[in-house]
Amino acid sequence: MIDYRPLRVAVLGAGSVGAQVADQLLTHRDELAARIGAGLELIGVAVRDLDAPRDTAIPRELLTTDAETLIVGADIVVELMGGLEPARTLILQALASGADVVTANKALLATHGPELFEAAAQVGAQLYYEAAVGGAIPIIRPLRDSLAGDRVQRILGIVNGTTNFILDRMDSHGESMEEALATATALGYAEADPTADVGGYDAAQKAAILASLAFHTLVPAEAVHREGITDITLEQVVAARKAGYVVKLLAICELLDDPVTGKPGVLARVHPALVPLAHPLAAVHGANNAIFVEAEAAGPLMFYGAGAGGIQTASAVLGDVVSAARRHVVGGPGVAESTHADLPVLPISAATTRYQISLTVADEPGVLATVAGILQQHGVSVETIQQAVSAPVGSGSVGEATLVIGTHEAVEADLAATVAALSSSSVVTAVTSVLRGEGL
Amino acid sequence: MIDYRPLRVAVLGAGSVGAQVADQLLTHRDELAARIGAGLELIGVAVRDLDAPRDTAIPRELLTTDAETLIVGADIVVELMGGLEPARTLILQALASGADVVTANKALLATHGPELFEAAAQVGAQLYYEAAVGGAIPIIRPLRDSLAGDRVQRILGIVNGTTNFILDRMDSHGESMEEALATATALGYAEADPTADVGGYDAAQKAAILASLAFHTLVPAEAVHREGITDITLEQVVAARKAGYVVKLLAICELLDDPVTGKPGVLARVHPALVPLAHPLAAVHGANNAIFVEAEAAGPLMFYGAGAGGIQTASAVLGDVVSAARRHVVGGPGVAESTHADLPVLPISAATTRYQISLTVADEPGVLATVAGILQQHGVSVETIQQAVSAPVGSGSVGEATLVIGTHEAVEADLAATVAALSSSSVVTAVTSVLRGEGL
Repeated sequence: MIDYRPLRVAVLGAGSVGAQVADQLLTHRDELAARIGAGLELIGVAVRDLDAPRDTAIPRELLTTDAETLIVGADIVVELMGGLEPARTLILQALASGADVVTANKALLATHGPELFEAAAQVGAQLYYEAAVGGAIPIIRPLRDSLAGDRVQRILGIVNGTTNFILDRMDSHGESMEEALATATALGYAEADPTADVGGYDAAQKAAILASLAFHTLVPAEAVHREGITDITLEQVVAARKAGYVVKLLAICELLDDPVTGKPGVLARVHPALVPLAHPLAAVHGANNAIFVEAEAAGPLMFYGAGAGGIQTASAVLGDVVSAARRHVVGGPGVAESTHADLPVLPISAATTRYQISLTVADEPGVLATVAGILQQHGVSVETIQQAVSAPVGSGSVGEATLVIGTHEAVEADLAATVAALSSSSVVTAVTSVLRGEGL
Repeated sequence: MIDYRPLRVAVLGAGSVGAQVADQLLTHRDELAARIGAGLELIGVAVRDLDAPRDTAIPRELLTTDAETLIVGADIVVELMGGLEPARTLILQALASGADVVTANKALLATHGPELFEAAAQVGAQLYYEAAVGGAIPIIRPLRDSLAGDRVQRILGIVNGTTNFILDRMDSHGESMEEALATATALGYAEADPTADVGGYDAAQKAAILASLAFHTLVPAEAVHREGITDITLEQVVAARKAGYVVKLLAICELLDDPVTGKPGVLARVHPALVPLAHPLAAVHGANNAIFVEAEAAGPLMFYGAGAGGIQTASAVLGDVVSAARRHVVGGPGVAESTHADLPVLPISAATTRYQISLTVADEPGVLATVAGILQQHGVSVETIQQAVSAPVGSGSVGEATLVIGTHEAVEADLAATVAALSSSSVVTAVTSVLRGEGL
């Protein structure tokens, strides 16, 4: 039964996601109206260039280069331009006019989220962003609503498809980092400038959004400890698999006690990590994403699916558009973001994790004892230590041996100090690899 | 900021889930209030026996045997008694009084869902049921809200932990059905009367709920085709693994064209099925649940976690309680169930699937041609056919051979007719196993 006036939807941006959203608003019009109880009228699509090629055809009369005029009178504004400006200004204008806003703009949310949520709250408008993390995967709504009565303790997410593709390719095809990146670029999984992905910036923005939501605490992107995958070598990936692990770039958000103050805080970090092969996250291949959530009552949960792609991300955007539209039809404001817990955001040094450290050492008596002594001095307990591979004869490094040390869980600060001490030890030729492993 | 009056919550039932919900309402009181913007006041817990042992201690003064009086004046009624009556009557009374209702009662929803949703809609109250399917796993909200702008095409769910435990145990430990059921009972995964689980009744109720929600069509539990796992043998499980599959009890809900009328319809079915080992559903072990959803735009998604357990299910119940409470604080009705699509519900004969058929046949020339001819007559195309194992010498059945036939996808009605024809063929001694395989 459709007895409500049509709701006016403006789309800003017609890239791979925007073009799909516009297309589906037009082609699924009747079905969406039936689900909502009101029609969705696409009043226009703001673009920079009217003549640019698009993934799907948008009727010429719907295109405009004047985004500011377009959003006037819109009930729902869908921002899919990306970048900080003019997206931020346009969203603030839309919210100020009372429109609900749907965005997939993780960079903007991770940078100016509080300003945007505050602007929405002031006028009772809503800001939806299911598509900002995990592409098509429902994760924002489950964290905000389904787990609202539980206590999230930790999130481990594969939230960047490009880096997962590259690491998976190294693992499955034996390609080097450079080769795997070239493959990702050729197949369209990596952009011409891959820095945002391989440098971990994209994942850090998503970690900031997830941590803020899960722990009811404002976690800005710059507070997320960030390491990319550029230093990961094929040797590390091969050695990891031999040891029963796969290397994944993880976004880890956790509630933990500050080892210095003893008080609870939030830590968000993005770095390559060793995931045991039997863990569900190890089975996330290609450019897929998965978010593993540990909650006090629910226990472990995992959400899996396509983390990117125009039509996939459009699914999440349209889900938010329908939510916004239903709110118009049934009345009443929705849910405001909650930062009531307001916990301190901790530095990486507060993390408790394990290290797998590979060393080249002099192949002589007493070295093992010296190395073990260094770990002991720093309060780091050794779980495994093995002489993995001797340097090949004729390599010019006869007389060297390779040690691979797996530690028990320890505070990051102690682990980092241990690695520094090992690096400067006279018996250690080189620290060749340091990878964190989470308790999984 | 808490400036709203406390919301009065009544819990009906103090079994494993109810006791945990009551406990968390009491112990997480401040945290829940901060998230909601209003306190939650547990006004009482209705039980049959005041002195029965409970999983968690509930203050004596909160217990009552008078559920009808308890729900008078409650803002939110949490029904965790299970069974059809008095749960149905009490929920109708609660809704009539304007209270929102949270329930985990899949049997009731699958049987009287339309009556309950209608009663809620009449007074603008809400009926929440995230815990009815998949225990702690958020699946109702993702289907109802996150995928509201997409078109779900198929759901394949492992939605019964008991049967997954049993089948997994047969696969991993080589136990027979009887042994695995005994293990499940000993470990508390199976009830004294396991019929609801092993007979597929529990899964069929969940399939009805999922299909109704995903396809906007009323699908009653009795319209779900249901086969349990009681006839599955260890031989079948072992043979499946050899062939690259694992046997799972799947709840399959799909949109498909009726092969008779050519018109779209909904089919919901529960039966053992062969899942390829590389598929994410094959990696769901023990009593865990997972729901694999295929949507037109989003592509494949999977939701994984604990499908049962008191505290796990309490997480989903409390998420619903918080949603209901937020609705009070922020005002306005929520979302009504939508059955706008109102598609026909199709019989199992409309399914398109594959069969793996094992036969004992006379070991003589021409048998293969006869068997192949029977399949061809019924329009069923053979993908693989192999003489798997000859009957052992001395078994009294020398002169027999075993054939395992894998078919291409075909309409269920044709496959069933093929099996019937094979059974009555003079060259076939026995049809020893028939298992469906889905296109995964």
